[in-house]
Amino acid sequence: MQDLLFPAEPQTRAIARELFSHVRELPLLSPHGHVDPGLLADDAPFPDPAQLLITPDHYVTRMLLSQGIPPGELGVRRIDGGEAQTDPRKIWRTFSDNWHLFRGTPSKLWLEQTLRDVFGVEGPLTYETYDVLAEKLAKPEFRPRALFSRFNLEVLATTESPLDSFSRHEKLAADGWLGRVITTFRPDDVVDLDWFGWSDRVARLGEITGCDTSTFSGYLEALRSRREVFIKYGATSSDHGHPTARVGVADDAAAIYQRAMRGQVTPEEGEVFRAHMLMEFARMSLEDGLVMQLHPGSYRNHNRYLSRAYGRDTGGDIPQATEYTHALKPLLDAYGHDPRLRIVVYTLDEYTYSRELAPLAGGYPALFLGAPWWFLDAPEALRRWRETVTETAGFYNTAGFVDDTRAYCSIPVRHEVARRVDAGFLARLVAEHRLSLDDAAETIADLAYHLPKKVFKL
Amino acid sequence: MQDLLFPAEPQTRAIARELFSHVRELPLLSPHGHVDPGLLADDAPFPDPAQLLITPDHYVTRMLLSQGIPPGELGVRRIDGGEAQTDPRKIWRTFSDNWHLFRGTPSKLWLEQTLRDVFGVEGPLTYETYDVLAEKLAKPEFRPRALFSRFNLEVLATTESPLDSFSRHEKLAADGWLGRVITTFRPDDVVDLDWFGWSDRVARLGEITGCDTSTFSGYLEALRSRREVFIKYGATSSDHGHPTARVGVADDAAAIYQRAMRGQVTPEEGEVFRAHMLMEFARMSLEDGLVMQLHPGSYRNHNRYLSRAYGRDTGGDIPQATEYTHALKPLLDAYGHDPRLRIVVYTLDEYTYSRELAPLAGGYPALFLGAPWWFLDAPEALRRWRETVTETAGFYNTAGFVDDTRAYCSIPVRHEVARRVDAGFLARLVAEHRLSLDDAAETIADLAYHLPKKVFKL
Amino acid sequence: MQDLLFPAEPQTRAIARELFSHVRELPLLSPHGHVDPGLLADDAPFPDPAQLLITPDHYVTRMLLSQGIPPGELGVRRIDGGEAQTDPRKIWRTFSDNWHLFRGTPSKLWLEQTLRDVFGVEGPLTYETYDVLAEKLAKPEFRPRALFSRFNLEVLATTESPLDSFSRHEKLAADGWLGRVITTFRPDDVVDLDWFGWSDRVARLGEITGCDTSTFSGYLEALRSRREVFIKYGATSSDHGHPTARVGVADDAAAIYQRAMRGQVTPEEGEVFRAHMLMEFARMSLEDGLVMQLHPGSYRNHNRYLSRAYGRDTGGDIPQATEYTHALKPLLDAYGHDPRLRIVVYTLDEYTYSRELAPLAGGYPALFLGAPWWFLDAPEALRRWRETVTETAGFYNTAGFVDDTRAYCSIPVRHEVARRVDAGFLARLVAEHRLSLDDAAETIADLAYHLPKKVFKL
Repeated sequence: MQDLLFPAEPQTRAIARELFSHVRELPLLSPHGHVDPGLLADDAPFPDPAQLLITPDHYVTRMLLSQGIPPGELGVRRIDGGEAQTDPRKIWRTFSDNWHLFRGTPSKLWLEQTLRDVFGVEGPLTYETYDVLAEKLAKPEFRPRALFSRFNLEVLATTESPLDSFSRHEKLAADGWLGRVITTFRPDDVVDLDWFGWSDRVARLGEITGCDTSTFSGYLEALRSRREVFIKYGATSSDHGHPTARVGVADDAAAIYQRAMRGQVTPEEGEVFRAHMLMEFARMSLEDGLVMQLHPGSYRNHNRYLSRAYGRDTGGDIPQATEYTHALKPLLDAYGHDPRLRIVVYTLDEYTYSRELAPLAGGYPALFLGAPWWFLDAPEALRRWRETVTETAGFYNTAGFVDDTRAYCSIPVRHEVARRVDAGFLARLVAEHRLSLDDAAETIADLAYHLPKKVFKL
Repeated sequence: MQDLLFPAEPQTRAIARELFSHVRELPLLSPHGHVDPGLLADDAPFPDPAQLLITPDHYVTRMLLSQGIPPGELGVRRIDGGEAQTDPRKIWRTFSDNWHLFRGTPSKLWLEQTLRDVFGVEGPLTYETYDVLAEKLAKPEFRPRALFSRFNLEVLATTESPLDSFSRHEKLAADGWLGRVITTFRPDDVVDLDWFGWSDRVARLGEITGCDTSTFSGYLEALRSRREVFIKYGATSSDHGHPTARVGVADDAAAIYQRAMRGQVTPEEGEVFRAHMLMEFARMSLEDGLVMQLHPGSYRNHNRYLSRAYGRDTGGDIPQATEYTHALKPLLDAYGHDPRLRIVVYTLDEYTYSRELAPLAGGYPALFLGAPWWFLDAPEALRRWRETVTETAGFYNTAGFVDDTRAYCSIPVRHEVARRVDAGFLARLVAEHRLSLDDAAETIADLAYHLPKKVFKL
Repeated sequence: MQDLLFPAEPQTRAIARELFSHVRELPLLSPHGHVDPGLLADDAPFPDPAQLLITPDHYVTRMLLSQGIPPGELGVRRIDGGEAQTDPRKIWRTFSDNWHLFRGTPSKLWLEQTLRDVFGVEGPLTYETYDVLAEKLAKPEFRPRALFSRFNLEVLATTESPLDSFSRHEKLAADGWLGRVITTFRPDDVVDLDWFGWSDRVARLGEITGCDTSTFSGYLEALRSRREVFIKYGATSSDHGHPTARVGVADDAAAIYQRAMRGQVTPEEGEVFRAHMLMEFARMSLEDGLVMQLHPGSYRNHNRYLSRAYGRDTGGDIPQATEYTHALKPLLDAYGHDPRLRIVVYTLDEYTYSRELAPLAGGYPALFLGAPWWFLDAPEALRRWRETVTETAGFYNTAGFVDDTRAYCSIPVRHEVARRVDAGFLARLVAEHRLSLDDAAETIADLAYHLPKKVFKL
């Protein structure tokens, strides 16, 4: 599939091919993702093709759900007492019978390329693919660490809560394996006052750190101290997934915190508190150097049926309109020109690209545009992103590709897709005499490797 | 015009040509539109080219109005006592003199193709085209029913108010003609409390049904009973054109209804009532199986001059920003996973495609994406739609093309345009090695025929 | 660079080439821009390459700022007492060292083409380019008036405040030079109550006009009288840069005006007053015939660091979401069909194109769509604009290209880029059999010359 995703026009395709050849072999940097570090700590063989490729992949389970196939039939564990399918062959059968639903989606692209490039399986995906895969998975060269090397992964960042014990990262650090797996500081579960169980988690945060989290200042101290631990485990960034991009100092943050301890906060106070905490985290970053990542705009657990039957974070989130120009102003006023701060902003709302995000990133040194996220991490959307933001923000205010995935085996193809889309976009600029071939070649290497390395301090 | 609308790149064009050949001859399904059923009931010859192609076409009269030519000069009847042009030749002259205004618009495309394919008129549209057309219109093969067969129309859905008497549908059913013309339940005029004359219409609804519409429960009963009659006249769907997509149970719906009877409701109460009624209609659909179509986001009769001089619904609507993620949640919470419900959502706001509509349709089994509507039912917009929604919603959560037109003769070309745009889009996926030719061929047939047949229960 | 910006597909490219040949030599109309009229009044040689091409160009200083290089290093004068770089060679060095940041941006395109076409400098931009340019700038053929002729500028509109003395325009009128430089009435600084120093400026307006601006009616009279003066200096249009597109009669406008004189208005009252004034200016246009230009949606001076260190209007504005459907309705209700009024609406929010702007321009005779503005005045954005608005608004409800620049030497290339993008777009319509070559050739000439001439009454 030499020309996968390249524009069909022959001259442009030839340029794309050449540009891609410059980055094809560059190591992968994965500065943000959700792979379970235990995978690499344990380095156990993957259990079966269904548990590897279907059950944990929200893109796959969502699409099948949208056509009436509940996640339980794909092996997703229910929390409501219902039974889930446990036979991986039956799961694979349900999946392969409905493979046509994925036409035109990145899931199809990722899976087909993964089968071909990682597992050497050619031809269309069918029920029989299961056996071929199952046989491969038993072999040592398909264990996580072997794949890590084969994937040419230079760095893989996982994402942990401040409450994480780092047992898995410790195991990784301890046993002499050379793969670089780092963590990311993701404090949402102790920052979001609306999230069920917040006060218990904050109490645990106090225990872990020895700080008095019954006070707001003790809470801040606890967070600061956890960040130090995260940095010890390699963290170079924090990540914040809020419903909105709102940031702003709240003079009554400590009072809100106290009311939250007593379970007496309104949703608006929760929002004010999150906004305040982004400012606090920015201040912490000034000191400890963690790059701030903002992932705003998701209506979490929108799908009530999914949350009730399968729990939180099972693929039921839906994006909502997101505002940045006003929301980020307090942060940019305060630190937008501070060389100690670096903020990478993502979006699920592409209808902010040319209006807000590109002008902001093209105007403030602290701000970088994160790669298209989630529903937008697919070829057409990646292409639209470059087409829309580059004229105002250029290439060098973007942060490089981020796979943001929990699907370990799909990491290489996701990066390859991004590199191919960039090759196609740059090739068009060259074919239209807007960029020299030499400049394009340098640029694609920067996008694929040098920029994320710099922006994420890898 | 073998290659009309196909991408110019030769390899992609060849693939598009092949894909289109698979659907060119497939029957047309028109599950939603505004053709006057009397047209087919009476089967009279079309009066003249102006009354056929210009006077009733809002796309045409709007464009000419935007350049200062009032609809009256195009034969549109005034309600303010002003005179309208009645000489069809003068109307045609005004039109053909301004034909250049339509460059780049779908009106030009539709009209040129209709002239060529339906009437066999080649060459540019001029004043002289009038005579050629007038001559043709006198012939029996250009009567509505003859065209129905020639168009290869398998089903044509019209749209009626619950107050409709079905005299025209009855005539159609009675006289043994085999064309399948079905109705659609469109209750806006008895649901929209702000619509002048609402209480009179509700009173008539009571008379027609024998229900006591002075009470809210009698009103609901009346609607239920009308739906039964609609189903008798072939209806498989209802249609709802609200200013917003808001849905939600209102505990005080009955009280609002009572106040509306006394003419004492606020606009906000009107909105709450509409939102509540969508929930009621969803519940009715669970029982009687009508597919719900939602057409939200139009600011109706925005053009005051038009409304005053020519009346409602004369082409003066303007879209407004439309929110779906929050608005539809109550409906999706309640019935988003109920296999008895099917909701087809349209939009005039393409800036919700990747952010809201595709994620929703790609996450809830009850929800399907309707084809681009109105200002978006043109080649570039249709292409953007596929490019933007497919990666998240796939092809199989879309509902197939809907012509939504009152311009009877344009039905074939509208479907042809949609099929050609799909052929071009799929051809690009094939050329970029993202889809096999076989899969693309199967997909285009599904989009053109099998999907709408299934989604709309035809 | 014969094929600059043309689609790579050979057949389409050949058509684009032919279409462009029809407009390549057409005179330039610049109906809206920010060139200093003193430049042409004095006709002095440009001081040096940095002061010509870098220091005053917000696109350039913004991009470098976004990568941490403060405007002071590029020669921008500070208002906070800080020092700015004054050595033009050092400024050029900073710029040329960071030239790669501009890849993919219009700045690169404009500058490279300007160097090639205006200054005859081939090859990549380097530090050495400085000397070549400096030598050229000393020659008489590179003085502003000589370039005016060479640029084939038929009309150049500058933009002035009602407080302007017109000394520079007077000088231009007096000395017999034949270039047509006209002014534009831009009253924001006496309309925006929130703008520091408003009451002083209004007092000066009173002095200049001899009207009693201590009363609202005197203020309106003063504005009316200034418009007469503007028209004397060639003005054919006014221009209004408000935060929103809101228009509407405020019954208490005179009372707000009085409170503003006492420094007692709220931001909301400021907004109400601006909305009211747009209505007043529309009424004035009915009488004096000035075309109204609206430039809404910019959050002015968003960048606090820039405003504090360098002052207002130094490139720190950021767009915000802009609503038109509701905002413009009062104006369109009142005068949307009045043949005496012409309104050209611009936007920084492309996510209103198909939803609001194209339907409005395609429905109201008074309304025309202005060319993509500012962050959107680049090839990809210009292409998206045509692709998105044409199907609903056609070509003839758009107002033609507007360069809107203060960068005098970039005027030709900006127009050339717009013409090339239009050639590419029209070529695709021709290649896809949607438009004949003859129609396309006529259309591109209309877009490049005849339409703006008519719309802006040039």
